[in-house]
Amino acid sequence: MVDIRPATPQDADLILHFIRELAIYEKAEHEVLSSPEAIREIIFADDSRVDALICEHEGEAVGFAVYFLNYSTWLGKYGLFLEDLYVTPEKRGIGAGKALLKHLANIALEKDCGRFEWNVLDWNQPAIDFYESLNAEAQSEWIGYRLTGDALRALAQS
Amino acid sequence: MVDIRPATPQDADLILHFIRELAIYEKAEHEVLSSPEAIREIIFADDSRVDALICEHEGEAVGFAVYFLNYSTWLGKYGLFLEDLYVTPEKRGIGAGKALLKHLANIALEKDCGRFEWNVLDWNQPAIDFYESLNAEAQSEWIGYRLTGDALRALAQS
Repeated sequence: MVDIRPATPQDADLILHFIRELAIYEKAEHEVLSSPEAIREIIFADDSRVDALICEHEGEAVGFAVYFLNYSTWLGKYGLFLEDLYVTPEKRGIGAGKALLKHLANIALEKDCGRFEWNVLDWNQPAIDFYESLNAEAQSEWIGYRLTGDALRALAQS
Repeated sequence: MVDIRPATPQDADLILHFIRELAIYEKAEHEVLSSPEAIREIIFADDSRVDALICEHEGEAVGFAVYFLNYSTWLGKYGLFLEDLYVTPEKRGIGAGKALLKHLANIALEKDCGRFEWNVLDWNQPAIDFYESLNAEAQSEWIGYRLTGDALRALAQS
């Protein structure tokens, strides 16, 4: 049996630990530039627009989720976007990931969100199989674009 | 010369008009379920998490953008996500789209966002060429997944 609870500022180190473990799995550890301070300053600010959940099993933290509201112009409603979902490898198979997603689905419905969305790496077949088993639909025709660093500053100053 | 201004509640009908024109271009007009009331209730609420811009040319509204903050766990920072960007066909080529993106890039920097992101349909080559010309990077390895309607409720009640 797993329990889901909202994260607290005392979880900042734990959240960073999970963020880094997930990034290692996603072959992007070098892209983790966050810190416990950065997590506390944004996720746990009074006016924060982002939230986190901790999943516990027998009192031990085994996974987490970070999410925020996005917006659908087509629906005219907020949506819930799941930025990170992670369960530590030795605790996979006990239903922690499903419990986190179920909890988030309920938050989405409580907030009158029109949809619940997330991204997955195209080679992460275990995750894709899991999401397909929930009848989530791949948005394969959409490509994300990103501006950052020098390219972002260049556009701003153009 | 084009001007960018924040949208106001009086723009709700105009915004819906542009949302619908964009959806027609994206072959998804049937998915537009929003209304002027829904736009006013969310985008223009006091605690709104979503904003809109109007682009004008010689006093005439020629395009719009809808955006909100997302969050990068890797950067530990907010990002700016552009949900909709549209310029009416007869006013393309006068720099309206570029002006909207430049304006948004400045908002992203003012808000200390680590990145500026959006999605594009994989067959929308004119838009892709435009984004590539700004040195935006395609996030082609990521696939979006979405739960909505019955599938979302089924997960919530599982």
